[in-house]
Amino acid sequence: MAESEWHETQIRIRYKDTDRMGVVYYGNYLTFFEVGRAELMRDLGFPYAEIEADGYFLVVTEANAKYYANVGYDSEVTVKTKIAKVKNVSMRFNYEVVDEAGKLLVSGHTVHACLNPDLKPVRIPPDLKEVITKNIKPENKSRSNLDY
Amino acid sequence: MAESEWHETQIRIRYKDTDRMGVVYYGNYLTFFEVGRAELMRDLGFPYAEIEADGYFLVVTEANAKYYANVGYDSEVTVKTKIAKVKNVSMRFNYEVVDEAGKLLVSGHTVHACLNPDLKPVRIPPDLKEVITKNIKPENKSRSNLDY
Amino acid sequence: MAESEWHETQIRIRYKDTDRMGVVYYGNYLTFFEVGRAELMRDLGFPYAEIEADGYFLVVTEANAKYYANVGYDSEVTVKTKIAKVKNVSMRFNYEVVDEAGKLLVSGHTVHACLNPDLKPVRIPPDLKEVITKNIKPENKSRSNLDY
Amino acid sequence: MAESEWHETQIRIRYKDTDRMGVVYYGNYLTFFEVGRAELMRDLGFPYAEIEADGYFLVVTEANAKYYANVGYDSEVTVKTKIAKVKNVSMRFNYEVVDEAGKLLVSGHTVHACLNPDLKPVRIPPDLKEVITKNIKPENKSRSNLDY
Repeated sequence: MAESEWHETQIRIRYKDTDRMGVVYYGNYLTFFEVGRAELMRDLGFPYAEIEADGYFLVVTEANAKYYANVGYDSEVTVKTKIAKVKNVSMRFNYEVVDEAGKLLVSGHTVHACLNPDLKPVRIPPDLKEVITKNIKPENKSRSNLDY
Repeated sequence: MAESEWHETQIRIRYKDTDRMGVVYYGNYLTFFEVGRAELMRDLGFPYAEIEADGYFLVVTEANAKYYANVGYDSEVTVKTKIAKVKNVSMRFNYEVVDEAGKLLVSGHTVHACLNPDLKPVRIPPDLKEVITKNIKPENKSRSNLDY
Repeated sequence: MAESEWHETQIRIRYKDTDRMGVVYYGNYLTFFEVGRAELMRDLGFPYAEIEADGYFLVVTEANAKYYANVGYDSEVTVKTKIAKVKNVSMRFNYEVVDEAGKLLVSGHTVHACLNPDLKPVRIPPDLKEVITKNIKPENKSRSNLDY
Repeated sequence: MAESEWHETQIRIRYKDTDRMGVVYYGNYLTFFEVGRAELMRDLGFPYAEIEADGYFLVVTEANAKYYANVGYDSEVTVKTKIAKVKNVSMRFNYEVVDEAGKLLVSGHTVHACLNPDLKPVRIPPDLKEVITKNIKPENKSRSNLDY
């Protein structure tokens, strides 16, 4: 993570992921985003399962995806994920999904609110917030971030 | 239910349900089976949400599907469901999925065990068992049931 | 459609739609959006399957969802859909998903580009464009549209 | 493959895979079976994408799963796959899904028919059949195969 702008995770496209156009169904990229942020959080020492075990949920309050190109069965895509912002009770991840040649397929972001077991908003716990804050990646002026 | 051998539920095929062959992905029929048995149980006066609210789970212990023909996007299929068997802690549903012309696409069955909130097997509650028992449909010798 | 601001479609929440929080997984709302726009287009006389049969694809180029409240298994939600904009080769749908009490769960939009079978952008065919244009619903200033 | 009875593939359980019981939805194991057989075929030198590129489909004609235990979010399961049988136009895969401790979660099998692009049954191409035949694993008398 330290040197790299983005955290990267590979996902192999399953037959199940495709639709009758022969490419990944648009909604499935939100699952790929989930995998990307789960692996990023694991690498930061906060597997999401442990965050929930500690009594916190990071529920999605907003999701956005822009689709530039398609990808089909058995391709291996890379989900690039970074933490773009953190506030007291919310945080934002940015994503880019690229194909094996590095071509941008989809960019997007999700915003999450920190909730307690009663599903009331609470401050992100301090140890988690510290790690998140250290790992915020500055927005660059590149392609997919222009219009964020 | 009384006169009819099978309970019937309609499902419209979504783009999401299809795969790159242009037809419903094989695993999605298990979701259609779920819809079929949920609607059957609702019609019997035992919506599955209430069964769970009463502290019982009918977890799947076996699922089987045989595939005879495909169906594509925007078709409306009928899921035909019946209760085929009941024991103290388990029960079995049979299914047939047919297209708009009545052609058999998929047949199958699921077996369910009744569990308590600790996920231990328990007897099916008496009021539910009574209704189930009354609604067992005799196996006919037709096409898809020959080899059950 | 004529009198109503939104086209409405009902969807029953399946067990398959839920996740371990006990509510609909965030990505599944993009499937519900698909159902909403498919039923709207059917009611306008242009079932999406026929649009594709005529050699056009309306591929998603952008999807957005904002999540306000959760909904669980067996609830019946209403997907409200309207055409918000049309250009030469693209169009936009807006959505609101509400629960049985009318409470807003999710709002969102999708943008679609019209492609030919070679997946090149083409003008929306004139008969389709005419119907779409007639059915554009003005943006109101209500809750979920404020920040569109 | 040579020494091992089963081909093995790891799958990390996604939030998307779980349902409101907190465990993997029963139908999703058919997707895991897909991943298992795809990776087995890749290791045998016949990635399924290439089989389709050569004009053959191995469509599922039967799927079966028996459920022994549950697994939740973020667990890593192993899908064990073997080729159990081959005939002129059909073949059968067996599966076991086990958790990190090796506990059996689900066993099952799928049967596939070889079809040409017109979706008519055809003989499995000779080079593929030869490799399949060499890699048939004898049925053992162990736990999940007893009742096959």
